[in-house]
Amino acid sequence: MSHTEPSEGDLTRTGMSLKHDREWDYELDRIVEAVAERDAKKVGLQFPEGLKRRGPAVTDDLRDLLPDDVRVMLSGQPCYGACDLDTFLMRRTDVFVHFGHSPMKESDKIIYVPLFSNVDVEPIMTDALDELPDEDVGLVTTAQHMNKFEEMREWLEARDFTVHTRRGDDRLTHEGQVLGCNYASADIDADQILYVGGGKFHPLGLAMEHPEKKVVIADPVNNAVSVADTEKFLKQRYGAVHRAMDAEKWGVIFCTKIGQGRWDQAEQIVEENENAYLITMDEVTPDRLRNFDMDAFVNTGCPRITTDDGPRFHKPMLTPGEYEIAVGNEPLENLEFDTFHGTW
Amino acid sequence: MSHTEPSEGDLTRTGMSLKHDREWDYELDRIVEAVAERDAKKVGLQFPEGLKRRGPAVTDDLRDLLPDDVRVMLSGQPCYGACDLDTFLMRRTDVFVHFGHSPMKESDKIIYVPLFSNVDVEPIMTDALDELPDEDVGLVTTAQHMNKFEEMREWLEARDFTVHTRRGDDRLTHEGQVLGCNYASADIDADQILYVGGGKFHPLGLAMEHPEKKVVIADPVNNAVSVADTEKFLKQRYGAVHRAMDAEKWGVIFCTKIGQGRWDQAEQIVEENENAYLITMDEVTPDRLRNFDMDAFVNTGCPRITTDDGPRFHKPMLTPGEYEIAVGNEPLENLEFDTFHGTW
Repeated sequence: MSHTEPSEGDLTRTGMSLKHDREWDYELDRIVEAVAERDAKKVGLQFPEGLKRRGPAVTDDLRDLLPDDVRVMLSGQPCYGACDLDTFLMRRTDVFVHFGHSPMKESDKIIYVPLFSNVDVEPIMTDALDELPDEDVGLVTTAQHMNKFEEMREWLEARDFTVHTRRGDDRLTHEGQVLGCNYASADIDADQILYVGGGKFHPLGLAMEHPEKKVVIADPVNNAVSVADTEKFLKQRYGAVHRAMDAEKWGVIFCTKIGQGRWDQAEQIVEENENAYLITMDEVTPDRLRNFDMDAFVNTGCPRITTDDGPRFHKPMLTPGEYEIAVGNEPLENLEFDTFHGTW
Repeated sequence: MSHTEPSEGDLTRTGMSLKHDREWDYELDRIVEAVAERDAKKVGLQFPEGLKRRGPAVTDDLRDLLPDDVRVMLSGQPCYGACDLDTFLMRRTDVFVHFGHSPMKESDKIIYVPLFSNVDVEPIMTDALDELPDEDVGLVTTAQHMNKFEEMREWLEARDFTVHTRRGDDRLTHEGQVLGCNYASADIDADQILYVGGGKFHPLGLAMEHPEKKVVIADPVNNAVSVADTEKFLKQRYGAVHRAMDAEKWGVIFCTKIGQGRWDQAEQIVEENENAYLITMDEVTPDRLRNFDMDAFVNTGCPRITTDDGPRFHKPMLTPGEYEIAVGNEPLENLEFDTFHGTW
């Protein structure tokens, strides 16, 4: 992720990087209790990118509450989602706290603190009404606003909407929850979907995955209503596929992060294409690929690196489905958004 | 490492990124033999940055030599030295080959292929003679040119030099070898040291560590002779220390890479300074530190990230010794180069 010029769906702009300095509930009591129970000496804290700057203050508060001989450590690894669990720090601490994401991997050692937002959602939902002409509406949100999901539903029902919600598949913890890589909770019987939450990252993915639906964004964090517009993204995807059609040497990226490994897919590509080479890595960044002498890349890891950061790579970066189109195995009209389904 | 504007001691310019396309001996026979012996199904290859572009060709050659059901994988993790062992790929492959560095961690699974250079060193040593007025001369080189170390010594002795060499400490595999973080092989009784090898990265470190000695660089790769000039580096170090003197909040980086963990040092700083916060990470990059709200950083990991990449970070980045100066525990004249000693 470069920080110079954030793209529209930039992973750093996921509503966690706040304009308004809000109070979060870090649930310090739960952490202090776990330390006492386990007689822990080392506590690891992992924050998403947009909340890393809160790390020192949370550490200060914990130092005040914990015995003097307990050491608090902050994870410096990039963290854009639940996949980015810092397993190194987890293994080397007695209590490990992951803030801001739903549980991805369950373990006695890990405390997940969801960091629910206390922002009022009703004013921005009122503003969004003009964009919702139908009676049927789907409703989705992110982990941060899950605490208000029933309030949202009731608010819509009180205004005579028929609200369609769904838990989605095993990758999703909550009813109505979306992830950057999974929109199964939006597989519902409505042509319009209301997304209530911060940032455009999630609703843009949702609109790419469900191009037949109107996705209305009610963003209570930035206090803005808009309709997801995927045109720029789609042009970029078609552009990348076209540029990759002449590629001879392909780098096939297998991402080693928990929850991102699609080994069978990666291996199949290499097996069927003698000019394809398997490359394994955790963070997939432009710098790391620059030294490889490839004509194009296919990323079997996080789809959002491919679609959102794609233009930053020096060579075309495709999803596995786009790769099949570029090498001629599938027609161009089969281009669709890449998502992760099922369990982690 | 950004690739836009390489600094003088840039880790990417270590003589591995070659102007002349040279033949290397990848010792494929050893790899093929190991695969047969262990009935291996997965082979991992890790190349240093400057040689990553050779990965596909080496993979092609191996595919021709190995049974069809053996899968070859390339490490996409950054690799600037022996510390950068890709332990993930190592654990998930039956045979793991690390190219271009001396062994750091011994394991039955790892094959170290040193990639000795076949470049002729004598012409550039002849050019360097003018810079070596004394009879006594120290001689050092890097892993790539170790195969010619005795030839270098004999060549100098034939010209009536008294050649001083040393194995250094346990961190160094070979007599006369230097690492970016260890110059114990140059603790010898001579005021001038001849470095024969590619790039300025190693001799600049050597000159920083031994400011009283004249370090002559005979670079057979770029065909250039020069004398190591540390002035720019020293100015940067003093500048960083001065800028950090007003810092309140300190980020104390503990690097999780094998061979870079100085835990006691990191912990001591945090114990003695209530405004210091421990941050753990593997790659230490400007992007990863940008979101932390700190006034300055002290890096207990790789010293060369601090000295060579320091100017790229948004806040002053100091070595542990420089930190002691910045917070007033040590006088400014105690500023010295940070190195790693002893075993990994």
